[in-house]
Amino acid sequence: MTVLALDIGATKFAVGVVDPGFRLRDVRRAAVTADDPWPGCRSLLLAVAGDKRVTAVGIGSAGPIDAPAGVTKPLNIAGWRAGFAIVEHVRALFPDAVVRLAGDGACLALAEHRIGGLRGVGNGLALTVSSGVGGGVVADGRVLLGRTGNAGHFGHIVVPGDDSPCACGGFGCVEAVAGGMSSARWARARGWDGATGIELAESARLGDPIALAALDRAGTALGQAISSAAALLDVERVVIGGGFAQSGASLWEPLRAAVDRYARLDFVRGLTVELSTLSEGATLVGAGVLAVEAASA
Amino acid sequence: MTVLALDIGATKFAVGVVDPGFRLRDVRRAAVTADDPWPGCRSLLLAVAGDKRVTAVGIGSAGPIDAPAGVTKPLNIAGWRAGFAIVEHVRALFPDAVVRLAGDGACLALAEHRIGGLRGVGNGLALTVSSGVGGGVVADGRVLLGRTGNAGHFGHIVVPGDDSPCACGGFGCVEAVAGGMSSARWARARGWDGATGIELAESARLGDPIALAALDRAGTALGQAISSAAALLDVERVVIGGGFAQSGASLWEPLRAAVDRYARLDFVRGLTVELSTLSEGATLVGAGVLAVEAASA
Repeated sequence: MTVLALDIGATKFAVGVVDPGFRLRDVRRAAVTADDPWPGCRSLLLAVAGDKRVTAVGIGSAGPIDAPAGVTKPLNIAGWRAGFAIVEHVRALFPDAVVRLAGDGACLALAEHRIGGLRGVGNGLALTVSSGVGGGVVADGRVLLGRTGNAGHFGHIVVPGDDSPCACGGFGCVEAVAGGMSSARWARARGWDGATGIELAESARLGDPIALAALDRAGTALGQAISSAAALLDVERVVIGGGFAQSGASLWEPLRAAVDRYARLDFVRGLTVELSTLSEGATLVGAGVLAVEAASA
Repeated sequence: MTVLALDIGATKFAVGVVDPGFRLRDVRRAAVTADDPWPGCRSLLLAVAGDKRVTAVGIGSAGPIDAPAGVTKPLNIAGWRAGFAIVEHVRALFPDAVVRLAGDGACLALAEHRIGGLRGVGNGLALTVSSGVGGGVVADGRVLLGRTGNAGHFGHIVVPGDDSPCACGGFGCVEAVAGGMSSARWARARGWDGATGIELAESARLGDPIALAALDRAGTALGQAISSAAALLDVERVVIGGGFAQSGASLWEPLRAAVDRYARLDFVRGLTVELSTLSEGATLVGAGVLAVEAASA
């Protein structure tokens, strides 16, 4: 009886074995081949499974997905953007297994709710702020899935002050303003000469005024979007993981200032917003939760 | 065995008897006395109850509320703004009754989900656009309540383009831009000489350019906030009731144009946004649903 978790990220696959306490072992990772990702994904699954009998597989995928159809169509993986029947393909590898697919945002929320900062929290948001911005929702004690498994697309809340085009085709999404990639792009257009969100945070720490302005802009947009979601969902706690969220006070001070300014209804005034204590593998843990709970259902 | 529904609006109380099919009868209404609302509310409840044995009372209240504490503290009722223990007071009137309190947004969503435009819809929004803007959320087949019963405060999603102060203390909330009251205020500041959102819609129908601009601004803001909520919650259908929502094409065309422009992720592209077919008494119906379901639980 082996339960596997698979995380489909924009650039990396991760697969691990999950125990009933949601601990992972034998985690292996592989780069996503943009044009034909399945062979690499398949090899990784088979390598981790070895000769064990796989009883359940939980899949967390970058969005969007079509969960009822078992299809993933991640914006950022060219070969799968038009849709790939991941559930059917995984089921063909492990015919005895229950296979479950959820968005990476829902998986993140499952991980935070079962073993992270949203434990015991009935209403909260689990966000990730890295090159992009995503998340998942816990509402009335449950992780929301949504009609097609895409609930938690926090990154596409529209924020004030910027009508930048977003990868989704829309404009002014918080991801298009506050993601590490868009923040770095904004700074480069103003003369900063780095490449990534992580470098941008480093420049801000060294006092670079353009980098500081970029983080201020990102933090403000995140605080505005958090305020919008908190009013809509009456949440008590927000946890934020991801590489760009580690940018320190230059990001967090404007973020908290925006929450103070915009989240004024009395039921959201006590809202706490904290850095996640889960590691980068949180989505994989959440995929594991999905699989373990499917296996025991 | 009589089940009562009570709707606490900013200016009016409504009480009715609810049957198991959520039909209302004996509905009576009374103005809210701003400084001491309870005696009027109490008389209305007793008048509708008559000498029947009341077994359940459902209360839908303008927000915010503190549902776990049984307290309402509506922004727009001065005498109750600091908090009024409505559940305790109603229970003292009907000692044998189960008493349930929810926000008016959740009640609206209950009504739309059980007998209105969200019947059979697992993920949707029920909005009201009148002098203010509010709503409720159906997610994964259930009406969300939130930590304190305030889930569905759609009116306090922050929208681009306007940093107007909102009654909640925040800035740029969709209610502060797109509510009938704020739209009329915006138009008056530009030389229009009417008073209400309803008059504003009438002026727009007659071709008044300021009124048309006000409705365009309101519709755009509503479409942006709907796009934000739809991405976050992966909903398939939005129904909108309330007086200002009846403003016709001058409001609905920019609203739909904004949804087309901002809701671009593939899972929200099929989103339908329609006028509610429920009457103005929808919140009272929802309070009735709350009571009937509590009585039969």
